[in-house]
Amino acid sequence: MNIHMIEAANARLSGNRRRTQILNSPFLDEIAGRRVYVKPECLQQTGSFKFRGAYNAIASLPEAIREKGVLAYSSGNHGQGVAYAARMFGIRAVVVMPSDAPNLKIENTRALGAQVVLYDRASEDRAEIGARLAAEHGLTLIKPFDEPQVIAGQGTIGLEIAEQARLRRVSEADVLIPCGGGGLTSGVALALEAKAPGLRPRPVEPEGFDDVTRSLISGEIESNAATSGSICDSIITPRPGDLTFPILKRLCGPGIVVSEADCLCAMATAFTRLKIVAEPGGAAALAAALYHGDAIEGDAVFVVVSGGNVDSAIFQRALEEWG
Amino acid sequence: MNIHMIEAANARLSGNRRRTQILNSPFLDEIAGRRVYVKPECLQQTGSFKFRGAYNAIASLPEAIREKGVLAYSSGNHGQGVAYAARMFGIRAVVVMPSDAPNLKIENTRALGAQVVLYDRASEDRAEIGARLAAEHGLTLIKPFDEPQVIAGQGTIGLEIAEQARLRRVSEADVLIPCGGGGLTSGVALALEAKAPGLRPRPVEPEGFDDVTRSLISGEIESNAATSGSICDSIITPRPGDLTFPILKRLCGPGIVVSEADCLCAMATAFTRLKIVAEPGGAAALAAALYHGDAIEGDAVFVVVSGGNVDSAIFQRALEEWG
Repeated sequence: MNIHMIEAANARLSGNRRRTQILNSPFLDEIAGRRVYVKPECLQQTGSFKFRGAYNAIASLPEAIREKGVLAYSSGNHGQGVAYAARMFGIRAVVVMPSDAPNLKIENTRALGAQVVLYDRASEDRAEIGARLAAEHGLTLIKPFDEPQVIAGQGTIGLEIAEQARLRRVSEADVLIPCGGGGLTSGVALALEAKAPGLRPRPVEPEGFDDVTRSLISGEIESNAATSGSICDSIITPRPGDLTFPILKRLCGPGIVVSEADCLCAMATAFTRLKIVAEPGGAAALAAALYHGDAIEGDAVFVVVSGGNVDSAIFQRALEEWG
Repeated sequence: MNIHMIEAANARLSGNRRRTQILNSPFLDEIAGRRVYVKPECLQQTGSFKFRGAYNAIASLPEAIREKGVLAYSSGNHGQGVAYAARMFGIRAVVVMPSDAPNLKIENTRALGAQVVLYDRASEDRAEIGARLAAEHGLTLIKPFDEPQVIAGQGTIGLEIAEQARLRRVSEADVLIPCGGGGLTSGVALALEAKAPGLRPRPVEPEGFDDVTRSLISGEIESNAATSGSICDSIITPRPGDLTFPILKRLCGPGIVVSEADCLCAMATAFTRLKIVAEPGGAAALAAALYHGDAIEGDAVFVVVSGGNVDSAIFQRALEEWG
């Protein structure tokens, strides 16, 4: 992994991804006690940053391999990113999803052009199904984060932040990033190392799922006790990746842990002040900027809002409790 | 009014307004039966396009006049735009608001740096109060729409749409615009006339408040029977302006009328598919694109979402009914 892979990803993504604009508000600055610059990846194609990595991974495949199609396991942001990117290339995408996944997610993934293969979580193994499909049809598996071209795609966000910080004359600041498996955080970290070394990446995680924060403290990969049961589902993974963790360890500042209530409150604040829709996990870094200012350094902070794919019931809960 | 005023406004606004990016979604295209390109001015400074006109009007004042301060009557988007633009110039802004305005609006306007002067709707006349304040302190009134430099500021949206359409190789399309007094629509119309004559501006209004649509049919200024009682409050005015109407008459295609339910449904769709927050009036043009496709021509349509300043209760209603 290096900056040249991210720059190559940037060239591939040019004209296909949205170069999301920085948003800010005097109201956020006042809450945070410093200038807050928000990178709204909820406004990205398919509603999350995942499109970048998915597109770049597919674009990087040799044409003869790519045209046979791709495969993903994900009912969430990565699955949608893979489905839409595959559609842009006019190739087949198969997304393997549990049969009890919410209907809307299944419908959306289909509507983005993917073939959805359902499996029974109790009696079937998705990896086995995926391996069989891949072997039968020559599909290539696009992993959600522990994959160099996915990391490189997410890293294009770091290139953009570096440039956007330069235009705002910010040379030193923390960059807060919602962190699951670490694909986004490691990609952004590599880009900032090369292009804006005064900007320090900081992973942000929900309480109870702070594997990266603990891993950074211990210096070794730590796991979460649970892998479900959080409204921040989009950034919940069992443990940091084998590829991503060494990058996080080398380049990131300490992790920051936020509560679910922090995330809901940040969603309501983003609604009121920025007019964007953030999902709970996607709002984690904004929550850290607004409500954990003591953990942050500098008079400016950059915040990635990583996605906006949230059920209206949870969004309404955020507005009811905090709007 | 001419294109040179809009180009001058564009130069003044450069670096101060957000050049809002076009958003789109395959799901919107499918509903509309054509490509839908959304210009999200809810993501503009202060949450609506009004900032552009307010900033330009203030920037256009001679410095000796400007430094004495400005005055606006508005508890809504225009008031916030004037307050924030005045703050950027470091000058005084007085906003005259009824004492029964929602507390949040009063607080927000104050938090943006304006001095709020409350009056009693039953016993006092805001114009009289405004005239007295203006005379006492030398404040300049910034009118909400029937003012050349305000129209020119809103017209910068038309310059951006012309360029954004060119990049997408769209040379003929309808451009749907939520329309109140016509400041936004007339400014955009003038810009499109000069820069993208194949793009046709179309005012969109809520049922019962379709003064512009009726005026375009009759060829003369028509008034609304009521001026309140709609959730689309941001685009309700008694009648089109004396300056704006001749421009609308010369340049616009027929108006389109949408229901409040259309607007709420469009808000929910914008939430789900674009991850933006639209206010009811701000969503009127999107509602026209999605649910009144028969009234539109061409295989692509541009849509201005003009603002996102909506109470969470009304937003929740949109999600409950249509999310």
